[in-house]
Amino acid sequence: MSFDNLWFLSDYGLEDEFVGVVKAVIRAIAPEVTVGDVTHSIPPHDIRAGALALARSMQYLTLAPAVVLAVVDPGVGSDRRAVAVEAGGADGDGPTAVLVGPDNGLMASAVAMAGGARRAVSLTNEDYQLPAPGPTFAGRDVFAPAAAHLCSGVDLTELGPMIDPVTLLPGIMPLSTQENGSVTGEVLWVDRFGNIQLNVDPDDLLLMDDPLLLVSGEKTRTAVRVRSYSDLRSGQIGLVTDSYGLVSIALDRRSASEELRIGSGDSVTIKAAE
Amino acid sequence: MSFDNLWFLSDYGLEDEFVGVVKAVIRAIAPEVTVGDVTHSIPPHDIRAGALALARSMQYLTLAPAVVLAVVDPGVGSDRRAVAVEAGGADGDGPTAVLVGPDNGLMASAVAMAGGARRAVSLTNEDYQLPAPGPTFAGRDVFAPAAAHLCSGVDLTELGPMIDPVTLLPGIMPLSTQENGSVTGEVLWVDRFGNIQLNVDPDDLLLMDDPLLLVSGEKTRTAVRVRSYSDLRSGQIGLVTDSYGLVSIALDRRSASEELRIGSGDSVTIKAAE
Amino acid sequence: MSFDNLWFLSDYGLEDEFVGVVKAVIRAIAPEVTVGDVTHSIPPHDIRAGALALARSMQYLTLAPAVVLAVVDPGVGSDRRAVAVEAGGADGDGPTAVLVGPDNGLMASAVAMAGGARRAVSLTNEDYQLPAPGPTFAGRDVFAPAAAHLCSGVDLTELGPMIDPVTLLPGIMPLSTQENGSVTGEVLWVDRFGNIQLNVDPDDLLLMDDPLLLVSGEKTRTAVRVRSYSDLRSGQIGLVTDSYGLVSIALDRRSASEELRIGSGDSVTIKAAE
Repeated sequence: MSFDNLWFLSDYGLEDEFVGVVKAVIRAIAPEVTVGDVTHSIPPHDIRAGALALARSMQYLTLAPAVVLAVVDPGVGSDRRAVAVEAGGADGDGPTAVLVGPDNGLMASAVAMAGGARRAVSLTNEDYQLPAPGPTFAGRDVFAPAAAHLCSGVDLTELGPMIDPVTLLPGIMPLSTQENGSVTGEVLWVDRFGNIQLNVDPDDLLLMDDPLLLVSGEKTRTAVRVRSYSDLRSGQIGLVTDSYGLVSIALDRRSASEELRIGSGDSVTIKAAE
Repeated sequence: MSFDNLWFLSDYGLEDEFVGVVKAVIRAIAPEVTVGDVTHSIPPHDIRAGALALARSMQYLTLAPAVVLAVVDPGVGSDRRAVAVEAGGADGDGPTAVLVGPDNGLMASAVAMAGGARRAVSLTNEDYQLPAPGPTFAGRDVFAPAAAHLCSGVDLTELGPMIDPVTLLPGIMPLSTQENGSVTGEVLWVDRFGNIQLNVDPDDLLLMDDPLLLVSGEKTRTAVRVRSYSDLRSGQIGLVTDSYGLVSIALDRRSASEELRIGSGDSVTIKAAE
Repeated sequence: MSFDNLWFLSDYGLEDEFVGVVKAVIRAIAPEVTVGDVTHSIPPHDIRAGALALARSMQYLTLAPAVVLAVVDPGVGSDRRAVAVEAGGADGDGPTAVLVGPDNGLMASAVAMAGGARRAVSLTNEDYQLPAPGPTFAGRDVFAPAAAHLCSGVDLTELGPMIDPVTLLPGIMPLSTQENGSVTGEVLWVDRFGNIQLNVDPDDLLLMDDPLLLVSGEKTRTAVRVRSYSDLRSGQIGLVTDSYGLVSIALDRRSASEELRIGSGDSVTIKAAE
């Protein structure tokens, strides 16, 4: 089994040459693979943000079988494991994806979205690593070579000893709560346009009538449900079913996050106005 | 007719996974195409800036036949049309380019630069779209599939009904004006280096002698024409014929925009000192 | 001799379409080559930062033979030469790399790391350039065509007259100094995570016992040597052998550069506490 597609997410940023160097390593090992970037702008060390971005993307990254290289790795050089996890695929089929990265919760939701872990290994076989002056750039020295070798047909089990998938560190996906007809959720993500994604299913708002109240911190504001941003009048706050199927708070052509001062991790309660 | 090259411009930024997800969709539909980024740093919702960047690039993007995917789409989910436009090519030849994006003026100048619209369709055939939880990510669900299918050889007319190209929304390209020997232009673009591009043709300055005066807002400053930035002495303001053949205001190794406080959309008058 | 890999570093940023346009030029000339980005976030005109990033990357970019296109070019349009330099490779072998860019010191350290210059040419043959309205975008009009033609098999000597490699402008690589058991180095680089790379070899600290003192400007601080960032306790300042084999000053999951207010080019003295 080899792979034509490798998707790469990290907190390396594009200011430095980290991403370029990782791709050079991949290209030397697996010249035929097409490497695509998911994003490299995960805030430094922010495992939660990386896990959420990966989970949002996973359904699209696996439209074709792929190796997914994910590196947000504050524990690099510690005893956190470096792993490769085969996910998904029906019996007798190849996997939907193999995810390669640190065992720190970063990949847990993405593995679940890809159908769950089938097999996993700890990346300890140094024959598939680069020699390195220090342990601080595992993306280049451990993860990229493993991902590239998988693309070029090396079997998962060559990369290190099998580990029980149940020992992989789980991710933490916050759940919204319902009480007295209100729903309280958490901001999962603020996107470039300032839209505020909540961990709230649109169905949880079905029994409420517009207008709705949004309570966040000391402030209570009125919002309306709309189909898309352009249905909002200037000054109106909207609740939109976003492109991932979750409730997002939005303004038309302005940043809801900046204007409402609501950011990632904040709590928001939604309830009917009366 | 199929295409080997797909160029992608948007206001999606690189902070989120939007660009990566769009590429994953393309890759699943058209595994052979090479996808290149024009830029994704168009300011959010800024159709004018996107249209200008696309127009500047078009001559180079079409050195080989290409599909151009352009998404700056504040009206997503409204009744603005999603379109694909075949442009250029002599009779009997294939088109120079097919542009895919919203019908909001974004692509108008680029279509003109590629030789004008030959045929256009409205992207309404859902067989060539992804199912989506909401209408807010047309780049992923409508435009990327259309662009990818065109690359893999699907005919334009499969994507939806033909529309008359004259009904496409025109772009707005501001024109400079001449009066009493002076030229008044508008700042089209400030690049990363702080160079200030005007919609002024160097020929319009041919009858003026150096030094020239630049009038912007309350300020009048002296400038000299030079061949390139490095011909400027420290403190001198230069007028350069830039790499797109327009007049740019520049300093040597410093940002003219920051130091002169002139930005995109500002008006600048150029006249002889006497 | 042709090349499958082209690596591209510049100070063009990703805000504008510069990088996309350069790639479109390359793609039209050499459709088969895979173009990878090293980074385009070198600060504008900062030859030193570009040279250091290129030198750090070079060992990985040349894991397979490659053309390296490097453009940080404040003297564009002046009489600085545009050059292509063949580097490395044993007798009878092809070169390890051909570097294409301005002769301003940017590529000197990278050439040395790739085994030294074998042959060099001045890029004056206009048959391998694009016609251009002005001389300000040599990346698009001179360097990219040269790099692409090399990838597609054009011989180096076609691009212009041979020049003696000893006439290439040398780079300036600052050296650390030792005195009375202390080592004084210079900050080469602050990476995205805020780690501060010094031009100090870990071996130069071998005779000193922990804790060490870091003297920078008016401040003296205590630091300890650790194997990786995660070995540091909150508040501890660490000296790590970084992924390029040099001494870096680091904090655990925080920016050492921001908290210690030490930046690129600053001087740092390391000595034993007593």
